[in-house]
Amino acid sequence: MNRRNFFKKGSLVALGSTLLHPFDSLANEIGYDTTAKYKKAKNIIIIVSDGMSIGTLNMADLYLSRKTGKGSNWLSLYKENKVSRALMDMASASSIVTDSAAASSSWGGGVRIENGGLNISKSGEAHFPIWQKFKKAGKKAGCVTTVPITHATPAGFCVNSKSRNAQEDIAEKYLEHKFDVMMGGGDDYFASNKRKDKKDMYQEFMTKGYQVVNTKQAMFSAETNKPILGVFDDNALPYAIDRKNSKELTQKIPTLAEMTKKAIEAMKNHDQGFVLQVEAGKVDWAAHGNDIAGLIHDQIDHDEAIQVAMDFAEQDGETLVIITTDHGNANPGVIYGSKANANFDSIQNYKHTNEWVLNGIGKETSISQIKERIHYANTIALTNEECKQLLDYYKDIPTANGLYNPKHLPFNLLATMQKLHNSVGWISMQHSADYVELAMYGPGSQLLKPFIKNTDLHYLMLEAAEVENSF
Amino acid sequence: MNRRNFFKKGSLVALGSTLLHPFDSLANEIGYDTTAKYKKAKNIIIIVSDGMSIGTLNMADLYLSRKTGKGSNWLSLYKENKVSRALMDMASASSIVTDSAAASSSWGGGVRIENGGLNISKSGEAHFPIWQKFKKAGKKAGCVTTVPITHATPAGFCVNSKSRNAQEDIAEKYLEHKFDVMMGGGDDYFASNKRKDKKDMYQEFMTKGYQVVNTKQAMFSAETNKPILGVFDDNALPYAIDRKNSKELTQKIPTLAEMTKKAIEAMKNHDQGFVLQVEAGKVDWAAHGNDIAGLIHDQIDHDEAIQVAMDFAEQDGETLVIITTDHGNANPGVIYGSKANANFDSIQNYKHTNEWVLNGIGKETSISQIKERIHYANTIALTNEECKQLLDYYKDIPTANGLYNPKHLPFNLLATMQKLHNSVGWISMQHSADYVELAMYGPGSQLLKPFIKNTDLHYLMLEAAEVENSF
Repeated sequence: MNRRNFFKKGSLVALGSTLLHPFDSLANEIGYDTTAKYKKAKNIIIIVSDGMSIGTLNMADLYLSRKTGKGSNWLSLYKENKVSRALMDMASASSIVTDSAAASSSWGGGVRIENGGLNISKSGEAHFPIWQKFKKAGKKAGCVTTVPITHATPAGFCVNSKSRNAQEDIAEKYLEHKFDVMMGGGDDYFASNKRKDKKDMYQEFMTKGYQVVNTKQAMFSAETNKPILGVFDDNALPYAIDRKNSKELTQKIPTLAEMTKKAIEAMKNHDQGFVLQVEAGKVDWAAHGNDIAGLIHDQIDHDEAIQVAMDFAEQDGETLVIITTDHGNANPGVIYGSKANANFDSIQNYKHTNEWVLNGIGKETSISQIKERIHYANTIALTNEECKQLLDYYKDIPTANGLYNPKHLPFNLLATMQKLHNSVGWISMQHSADYVELAMYGPGSQLLKPFIKNTDLHYLMLEAAEVENSF
Repeated sequence: MNRRNFFKKGSLVALGSTLLHPFDSLANEIGYDTTAKYKKAKNIIIIVSDGMSIGTLNMADLYLSRKTGKGSNWLSLYKENKVSRALMDMASASSIVTDSAAASSSWGGGVRIENGGLNISKSGEAHFPIWQKFKKAGKKAGCVTTVPITHATPAGFCVNSKSRNAQEDIAEKYLEHKFDVMMGGGDDYFASNKRKDKKDMYQEFMTKGYQVVNTKQAMFSAETNKPILGVFDDNALPYAIDRKNSKELTQKIPTLAEMTKKAIEAMKNHDQGFVLQVEAGKVDWAAHGNDIAGLIHDQIDHDEAIQVAMDFAEQDGETLVIITTDHGNANPGVIYGSKANANFDSIQNYKHTNEWVLNGIGKETSISQIKERIHYANTIALTNEECKQLLDYYKDIPTANGLYNPKHLPFNLLATMQKLHNSVGWISMQHSADYVELAMYGPGSQLLKPFIKNTDLHYLMLEAAEVENSF
């Protein structure tokens, strides 16, 4: 569905809606007049659970169903028959298994590029990012995320960059294009004392009229008629379950749903509409860490953002809501066995992520302290031998400022030990090639075929909003 | 959607189609008159890939796309917008992770029962199996599979049994109810020299008018006006890739697509229609063995059966085709990495299953023989150390009639070694709780909601065919 330059100025009316809505088989089957008008999407909210294998969606829904009697908002939309659905092929130009940068670029630029870049192909060709297209069309545009706001998924909708790692540059590009609401983590890329060039990006944003907020309270208090930059942590925001179990973090850090609500409020009164990307970025990080409490609770935070978007969209009537993920990660799932139910339910007792558990252990920690910490966090009684295996990992880990590099922590070993107790398995600590789940609500959702390529979504968003693509 | 006893005699016309087709949101949205008639499904073909995680569907599609330029038939139906889709929750009465017996019973009896049984609840209550309901309604009914025809998935549509393991009894029950076409493996449960009671079930079937066939050629030659029992192997049929790479097996053993074609031919001229279950049972067995070549090629065999069913259904116009799986298994997937494409493509060079590889090794095998065998089967050069690890598994395996018990073979170890070369990972060697993919084509497919419980499918089949449920 390459529709670049499809919409020439003034051609929309002449073309009519047959070409705009070519694939509604039911409508055809039942003799529905396909020249009748579908509504135009004035607003688009796309809500991405980064790195969500289908098992992650399944486990969050099972977790909620078994704990509260009510499943996830995502699957409730299916049960209530409110959405169109598809599988989506997320391959990048370089691999059947994408990274988040190429994935976001496929949606953002409409072209598959190599893993690692942002809307710039290997040949050097730049692809105009979709949030810039919508800005040019007069809409407000923003992103909220639980990882640094300069991270791959928001950046892929907003900017061009040879490397996803150029997060300091990406912060500057956001200002250059004056995106309207940008919130998440990432102080490391904005603060003058942390940036290589010592620029005070906060000052630069304020000079250009932004309200800069770094706490939940300040975010709530921000005016809705001026652009907002919200940066609530050094790098990513804390995992949802660690936030929930810390008074201090709960007070300071907004949830994804709260950021979503604020972003909608800040943009919804704009005459020409708005576009918003919402990313549950730490679902991916939890999958990389085989960290089940992180995974399920951040997926639930994503699910709560869905509710916020749906509450707005159902009332508004002119908003396309897109719910999806950019790739699988680790393909987790609940494994068959006589104790599968009880084991899976034991995750309801988990108080903290594996990241929290492992960051609290060092080479000086005793076996009994490890045992106690894991019992506190997971209600699991590890053996002395297991605790010793964990401790062995810390012997040669280099320390820096008292913090261990998370990448060297024994995430995989801990998950393997937990598997015996929670019946959850993982295929790896990396992304997978699985086709991903995609759902849509509202005007434009009728355009969705049951199987699409990632790049199709770029053109679908433009088409739904009737925004021209002649850039 | 519990619609037991929903269809009282003569009530169909009075009820009208509003109740019959309550959930077509698009139809409602666009003002389509929901009292208009949908066609009745005269025939139903349900094609089950047993134990297919979403990654299995993905990998078979990727494998075909990359090898032939054309993906799977299953996903082509999505690309061509020909089918309705749903996710389906397959939990059993006893567990969030079902076995195949409870799964088939949920569809077959319309009630969730405990794992291990066939349409008999723990309390002893029996649930009338759906293929018997359709027989009572005057239709022909049959099953074809690549595992023993007495195995859980076909049995769950046909009979009541406290235990799925009672395969000798199940063979007798098939005769009692005179199912019209039953084909697969399972000589172990029919042959007088193998049954505990020494009954010659083949003779009993013949006495009651069945044609009994045990080769592909005999199957092709069977008349289509008499019932057919086809049993082509002792237990399960060989894996597809092992069959393809053996002249002898290719000559003797029909493919799933060939059995499907024959079954349709044998039943399609029946005035009152037919129902047919097609099971790719060894997809599940391959997942239990983390056996990638077995998995992909048996999934492809399933996919070819889809084409046979679709070719018939598209011409016929009165056939509902249901394509699904009964649960995930091992959640396999292609893992991110710089060599992911090349590694995954190397599976195109695999000549045999891991079952074939490991059954050809014994404690007397030398390191160099193991190395050679795996290089022949997978084009992988294992190290001496890896070969020694494999050989170590054989030291204490008991032998019986020269055959090693497959359950003691080092499937997991071999898959772990292959993972470095083919980039495919597995979470376990067991079923998973993942919600499963479900697609429908033809009359009745408009009844499908985007998310259903397994038991809903029972009532959907009855409703689509307008067969009463008053048993």
